[in-house]
Amino acid sequence: MSSSDIFTGELIGTAVLILLGGGVCAAVTLKRSKAQNAGWLAITFGWGFAVLTGAYIGAKSGAHLNPAVTLGLAIDGGVKWSDVPLYIGSQLLGAMIGATLVWLAYYGQFKAHLTDPELVSTLNPAEGMVDQTATPQAGPVLGIFSTGPEIRNVVQNLVTEIIGTAALVLFILTMGLTKGLATSGTGTLMVAFVVVGIGLSLGGPTGYAINPARDLGPRIVHALLPLPNKGGSDWRYAWIPVVGPLAGAALAAGIHKIAF
Amino acid sequence: MSSSDIFTGELIGTAVLILLGGGVCAAVTLKRSKAQNAGWLAITFGWGFAVLTGAYIGAKSGAHLNPAVTLGLAIDGGVKWSDVPLYIGSQLLGAMIGATLVWLAYYGQFKAHLTDPELVSTLNPAEGMVDQTATPQAGPVLGIFSTGPEIRNVVQNLVTEIIGTAALVLFILTMGLTKGLATSGTGTLMVAFVVVGIGLSLGGPTGYAINPARDLGPRIVHALLPLPNKGGSDWRYAWIPVVGPLAGAALAAGIHKIAF
Amino acid sequence: MSSSDIFTGELIGTAVLILLGGGVCAAVTLKRSKAQNAGWLAITFGWGFAVLTGAYIGAKSGAHLNPAVTLGLAIDGGVKWSDVPLYIGSQLLGAMIGATLVWLAYYGQFKAHLTDPELVSTLNPAEGMVDQTATPQAGPVLGIFSTGPEIRNVVQNLVTEIIGTAALVLFILTMGLTKGLATSGTGTLMVAFVVVGIGLSLGGPTGYAINPARDLGPRIVHALLPLPNKGGSDWRYAWIPVVGPLAGAALAAGIHKIAF
Amino acid sequence: MSSSDIFTGELIGTAVLILLGGGVCAAVTLKRSKAQNAGWLAITFGWGFAVLTGAYIGAKSGAHLNPAVTLGLAIDGGVKWSDVPLYIGSQLLGAMIGATLVWLAYYGQFKAHLTDPELVSTLNPAEGMVDQTATPQAGPVLGIFSTGPEIRNVVQNLVTEIIGTAALVLFILTMGLTKGLATSGTGTLMVAFVVVGIGLSLGGPTGYAINPARDLGPRIVHALLPLPNKGGSDWRYAWIPVVGPLAGAALAAGIHKIAF
Repeated sequence: MSSSDIFTGELIGTAVLILLGGGVCAAVTLKRSKAQNAGWLAITFGWGFAVLTGAYIGAKSGAHLNPAVTLGLAIDGGVKWSDVPLYIGSQLLGAMIGATLVWLAYYGQFKAHLTDPELVSTLNPAEGMVDQTATPQAGPVLGIFSTGPEIRNVVQNLVTEIIGTAALVLFILTMGLTKGLATSGTGTLMVAFVVVGIGLSLGGPTGYAINPARDLGPRIVHALLPLPNKGGSDWRYAWIPVVGPLAGAALAAGIHKIAF
Repeated sequence: MSSSDIFTGELIGTAVLILLGGGVCAAVTLKRSKAQNAGWLAITFGWGFAVLTGAYIGAKSGAHLNPAVTLGLAIDGGVKWSDVPLYIGSQLLGAMIGATLVWLAYYGQFKAHLTDPELVSTLNPAEGMVDQTATPQAGPVLGIFSTGPEIRNVVQNLVTEIIGTAALVLFILTMGLTKGLATSGTGTLMVAFVVVGIGLSLGGPTGYAINPARDLGPRIVHALLPLPNKGGSDWRYAWIPVVGPLAGAALAAGIHKIAF
Repeated sequence: MSSSDIFTGELIGTAVLILLGGGVCAAVTLKRSKAQNAGWLAITFGWGFAVLTGAYIGAKSGAHLNPAVTLGLAIDGGVKWSDVPLYIGSQLLGAMIGATLVWLAYYGQFKAHLTDPELVSTLNPAEGMVDQTATPQAGPVLGIFSTGPEIRNVVQNLVTEIIGTAALVLFILTMGLTKGLATSGTGTLMVAFVVVGIGLSLGGPTGYAINPARDLGPRIVHALLPLPNKGGSDWRYAWIPVVGPLAGAALAAGIHKIAF
Repeated sequence: MSSSDIFTGELIGTAVLILLGGGVCAAVTLKRSKAQNAGWLAITFGWGFAVLTGAYIGAKSGAHLNPAVTLGLAIDGGVKWSDVPLYIGSQLLGAMIGATLVWLAYYGQFKAHLTDPELVSTLNPAEGMVDQTATPQAGPVLGIFSTGPEIRNVVQNLVTEIIGTAALVLFILTMGLTKGLATSGTGTLMVAFVVVGIGLSLGGPTGYAINPARDLGPRIVHALLPLPNKGGSDWRYAWIPVVGPLAGAALAAGIHKIAF
């Protein structure tokens, strides 16, 4: 696989993933959105179909779209270690582009939401379905960009991200055994529904980052965007959805090596 | 592909698309419908399965069902420019037939809804989940036929439609690379779920036309139907869901040419 | 195809279809069910996956499970006219078995629901999500067995059933063109999601029978079962979900002959 | 198939099944979960996608993940009787591992939920969507681990589990006829959606165990875990979700032998 294919596939694929994934969080969170309060099922299916769309568009690079997937495949032998930095860099850049596109698509809704008198008068409480924890670090729209825990506890939050990512990566590594399926439409559909499932089942405590680029890229964009009253970017938490998913992927690759 | 195949496939396929797509908007909006207030997830899945049904029935013409898709494929080289007018004309006519069928299927519900004393006493506020903006232009049932913005802003509304359509058309062009998939049942299923995803993620601000025929055809029918108290057809907005999706398709075709 | 295959496939397939389809109506309607008030999306997906399960189990007969589908295929030439009575008879008998199984699976819930003091004190108003029209003909649990209109109007109710069934049968006839798909798992999945879509989009006015056996078989069982306070079986309406779907299937077969 | 393949596939596959299946019950039940009260549709799709993920990961053993499926296949001749004990033992052990992982992933939520002053002041009433029956046997979080009936009645509860499992096993046995499908991605997707359907349609009375390992393994873990105020493990009911599904599987195998 050429470097150009890796860069293009991961960049565009991850941008589409975050455009649609961040988009559904904006859709259910922001005032003046037709989908406001559409619920947890809408969020999880939205992220699943974001994976479907991004993974298919980014098929030319293998469509990892996720540094944890890249790490798992590298340990498993399916990706060259020398390609890993390019994969991860492209994913991170793509995620930042995707988050910026969410802001453009919901520009008016962000403005209406963040300048709402009711919000302004009670600043600091986090809003929205994705991040309901009222902590000083979590801004009112941070949940549209990045994940955050309902209960802050480093060990607990890491464990949840490790378990969720291990399930995802173990599934992807198993699929790799049957190469035909992994690159087919059916394989992409299955990954999408598995992501819906992980969200429904394991998203409750931390919002299921299960992907360092999905969390870190948009968090950087949140910090940079000129949004009024946007609150902090919760950098204190930012390392957990990076380290947890990578550890989960390594765990899954280990289980896969031993058991399969 | 013969002209007759194009005409038949696009006409019937788009009619079914709008019958089911407009149908789900009627189902969740109108009084005396069993599905009233079934929610945003019902709307987005309803439109997705409308695409599935229409795209499969219209397979003989390639099932574009959408002038933006036709334009994207023409720029990309998959459709002859001389066939484009026939495609678009058939789609527009099909969309008008579909919107008329929605009215027939929900005839009693339209009547009950529009002559409801509560509605009549407060005429002008828009109703329903699809179009909740209370503007003088938007009638109480226009949201069953056409899209409308939550916040009126020409640039913003155009940008949202451009981004949503670009994601759709980029997906379809990528799929075209693997011709076998594009014409298979799996490919049709994937397009359907991608449309659900775009609705969930990017439908919040404008109701995701992402298809000029889907918006303009039913708007014409809304203007022509003899419905009491139906309100205006919001012609001031009508050009945006035509121009935005076409621009988005051109953008996607450009990205596809450069990057793939 | 042997008579024995037709009988077995249609009987067991339709029994499973109605077990799961009637089951979801019981689940969302009856008191003391964990799924009570789970909503319209649950009902429509429940019926869709009922089709998936029944159609796959009944594959040996072609899995029509629906006299309207059998009629459409007979007009189209895919089924011998001499086999039609056996198909329809098996479907009707299977539907009655399925409805009886729903009663067995929800025996305690039926009893709790129908002897609830609140219900008994206000007898006659229809209950449940599926049949909310308070008419003297519609009993409190009839909606678990058969469909009923929100607004009673013979022409209107017929038109809605004709349109919904025509969309279903046109889809199935189109699929028949590609025989490989029609008998594959992907084809069965697609029919299931199309049925979800028709429910979401066209189920609002009459509850989408789109299948004479699905409505008439369970209605007979409702009339026969020894349920306290069960109310009438609404025989006045019973011919509409028989005649409407058959007319819709004939219409679809005609469109298919002319246009495809 | 080697014993090692059976052990590994069933152990890991069932662990993932219960991790995600129990996970969605924790997600919708526990305080401080982002998905609390996400509803019945979330639970049923969560379990369906749990089957998808676990079945694919455990493909090397055939991915029964369920003693009832193993029994049905053994009667039908697809599995050697001498392998049955290893299958069932691995499934039960895997289910216990999965339930423990749910506890780890939701550690903080369990603690917050079970030490909530409101709960403690009213101990004994069962909580959550999955087990709403306020019986002395059912603890406040037992519904995250095991199933329980809404109405306690041995015959009734057995009948419901028999019918639900028979539908599942009959579907799987029918699929076995077309070996290619049974081991493909499409086949796994279909089983997942059939499980969603059985949950939607037949889960109302007892919470659809339809799998002895899914119920018994987590119940043992519930009894062993050091959770405060966890209530009883309802051992009085525990035999029903074991015997019912096994009887349903035998019934389905009998129907399959006679009719197919």
